[in-house]
Amino acid sequence: MTAPLKAIDGSADLPVLMNDLAQRARAAARVLSLAPAEQKNRALEAMERLVRARADAIIAANAEDVAEAKAGGMAASFVDRLTLTPARVAGMADGIAVVRGVADPVGVVTESWQRPNGMTIERVRVPLGVIAVIFESRPNVAADAGVLCLKSGNAVILRGGSDSFRSCRAIHECLVEGLREADLPEAAITLVPTRDRAAVGLLLSGLNGGVDVIVPRGGKSLVARVESEARVPVFAHLEGVNHVYVDGAADLEMAKSIVLNAKMRRTGVCGAAETLLIDRAAQDKIEPLVDMLIGAGCEVRGDAAIRAADARVKPAGNEDWDTEYLDAIIAAKVVDGVDGAIAHIHEHGSHHTDAIVTADNAAADRFLNEVDSAIVLHNASTQFADGGEFGFGAEIGIATGKFHARGPVGVEQLTSFKYRIHGTGQTRP
Amino acid sequence: MTAPLKAIDGSADLPVLMNDLAQRARAAARVLSLAPAEQKNRALEAMERLVRARADAIIAANAEDVAEAKAGGMAASFVDRLTLTPARVAGMADGIAVVRGVADPVGVVTESWQRPNGMTIERVRVPLGVIAVIFESRPNVAADAGVLCLKSGNAVILRGGSDSFRSCRAIHECLVEGLREADLPEAAITLVPTRDRAAVGLLLSGLNGGVDVIVPRGGKSLVARVESEARVPVFAHLEGVNHVYVDGAADLEMAKSIVLNAKMRRTGVCGAAETLLIDRAAQDKIEPLVDMLIGAGCEVRGDAAIRAADARVKPAGNEDWDTEYLDAIIAAKVVDGVDGAIAHIHEHGSHHTDAIVTADNAAADRFLNEVDSAIVLHNASTQFADGGEFGFGAEIGIATGKFHARGPVGVEQLTSFKYRIHGTGQTRP
Repeated sequence: MTAPLKAIDGSADLPVLMNDLAQRARAAARVLSLAPAEQKNRALEAMERLVRARADAIIAANAEDVAEAKAGGMAASFVDRLTLTPARVAGMADGIAVVRGVADPVGVVTESWQRPNGMTIERVRVPLGVIAVIFESRPNVAADAGVLCLKSGNAVILRGGSDSFRSCRAIHECLVEGLREADLPEAAITLVPTRDRAAVGLLLSGLNGGVDVIVPRGGKSLVARVESEARVPVFAHLEGVNHVYVDGAADLEMAKSIVLNAKMRRTGVCGAAETLLIDRAAQDKIEPLVDMLIGAGCEVRGDAAIRAADARVKPAGNEDWDTEYLDAIIAAKVVDGVDGAIAHIHEHGSHHTDAIVTADNAAADRFLNEVDSAIVLHNASTQFADGGEFGFGAEIGIATGKFHARGPVGVEQLTSFKYRIHGTGQTRP
Repeated sequence: MTAPLKAIDGSADLPVLMNDLAQRARAAARVLSLAPAEQKNRALEAMERLVRARADAIIAANAEDVAEAKAGGMAASFVDRLTLTPARVAGMADGIAVVRGVADPVGVVTESWQRPNGMTIERVRVPLGVIAVIFESRPNVAADAGVLCLKSGNAVILRGGSDSFRSCRAIHECLVEGLREADLPEAAITLVPTRDRAAVGLLLSGLNGGVDVIVPRGGKSLVARVESEARVPVFAHLEGVNHVYVDGAADLEMAKSIVLNAKMRRTGVCGAAETLLIDRAAQDKIEPLVDMLIGAGCEVRGDAAIRAADARVKPAGNEDWDTEYLDAIIAAKVVDGVDGAIAHIHEHGSHHTDAIVTADNAAADRFLNEVDSAIVLHNASTQFADGGEFGFGAEIGIATGKFHARGPVGVEQLTSFKYRIHGTGQTRP
């Protein structure tokens, strides 16, 4: 390693800086790929300790970002996402402890078999390489993504929103010091040292093979840009237009409980339900479900059959079936059984998470097999779409693509594999 | 399904044709993804039977392609790859039988676990969708790739070299009739019905989401073009610059046997060794290894230390360490132990297949862990880099990337997965 990277703003040297940074990350990735679990955990232990010890400094740096955002007239919701409190910093430290506790995926033999000629073949997990994480205002993503990549043996290049630059820098200092304490290369977790927005475009280019995969964390416009411009693989979901289908054979109380939770537990998460489909054979369930939702403060936008059941239902337009509200609003429609539900989801779904409520196991099997989403549930809430709820400990995000990673992306899906073959002199006939 | 696709050559309607074809493939993929193993095997049984029954017609169509290629002055090696003989057609039919015998990967539950709240989570294999296979002169790829995609529940769009168009069409007719006999959609295996070379560029564009992954089968220039232009994932290897490292602790007879097989069994396959690395501590092995290779008709290009051992060794230039000869030529170099071998492969390797010959298990472990290739072998020949030799039954190719597929790509790696969750009314706290 040569001299440390210098932050430069708006300089024509940005491509040089970014390529240099990617090369350092690549060299660090090679070291990390061979680092034992114990050494990585030592770094994670130090990082957790440092984040807790420096909470005041992190919050002070964050206060400067927050003041600038407020002065710049940013929306209250934006400022809320940006703001770090003592509880949020403690949550970040807790998250590092959780990742430390997750089993190290690197080097795990997932399959092994012997060939008739006596050779043994093992399929063993190896890290992916260099992961670029592009996020927006939430500075805690720097810690969450940084430590998850470390645990999985990958180097990471973090690019936070320019509005959270000071906060990210303060958090990043803790991570780097943790790497140093464990004798791991500092470039294993790199923060792009400039607020220059052109850095994002350079990351999306893949930096001449310097970046192996990009994980965008933020709103739909960020994800859409990354998906359309990236020249390397992307782990992401654009949106979660998730459905709960209440079958004719559903238990009403179970349906009410699942629909309420799927929609209203937290309306802003990607696993929240956005559309309620009700079987035409479950006419009697429309009114109680709609009444419950409206009583819980949810706006219901329905088709004619739903509106006929309750005058408070607003009419749904064509666009409602394709909308991710992320709010206390739900679209509701009557469909013809499980076939109608599958057809509707095929046309309008986003391949994220969809649920069926039914006591009919054959209907459930058809729904789970035929709905082409990363997560399909029978008699459970869509809000379980989360790496922690899957038992993964932590996740870097949820992916809706079918390549490599799908569903909640934890440490295992941040690895690839190689084949290790042991012989005793075998040659091929 | 509407009217059949019409072949059009050089027409401005090509984008319309290709998008139409991709849409039909997408619809077929949805049917295929749910088709039971028995139905797919019924189609495969018919395809094998039809290829055998129509061998004469296939060979007659091929004869027209061959005549045109010869009249066009194509190289003898090209004409050889293009030519179908009764034995080659029988080999194609045998290959279909092998694929029929492979276990169906679709629907296999690869992991399942129960959460503390009682929900069970299953990870289950699902097909990828629509695979485009772009190949060159070998018409048998139409059958090999077509049936492998079918077995894995994927629709496939085949684009053969324009020189093998008639041969591919004759083979494709057998495949389509097999689909028809098993009541599967004909668009499950589509042959691009035109020789217009612009079709390749359209496939590489991904056809507006119509193509999920591209598999190039052919020479380095085809693969390089696909890797640089494709807007969707690619399963491929650009080249196999494979190494055999003979350690100081190697048994000489085993080293001779493995080096000879790795280089000379077949020199034109991607798993052939191209560089021989010899430990400085194995000075006494240089002369017998070089003598054996030259005696077997292999040209040896060595560094100074290798040339000192045998006057027949030609001097290696810098470019030799990066060359995939695919011929009876090997580059040879003396390195400083396993560290020197790992460093050389890190600098010059192509992440395909590399082997160490040694009786020192610690050295073997270091080599197998630190060499970043899809396949790493201890005391076995690099020519085992093959799906059949791995026990996969058949492969669509070998991938050197780290995303999704790596090493020999058989039916399992042509699938993705989904999470299937069964609950009893669970909601998220």
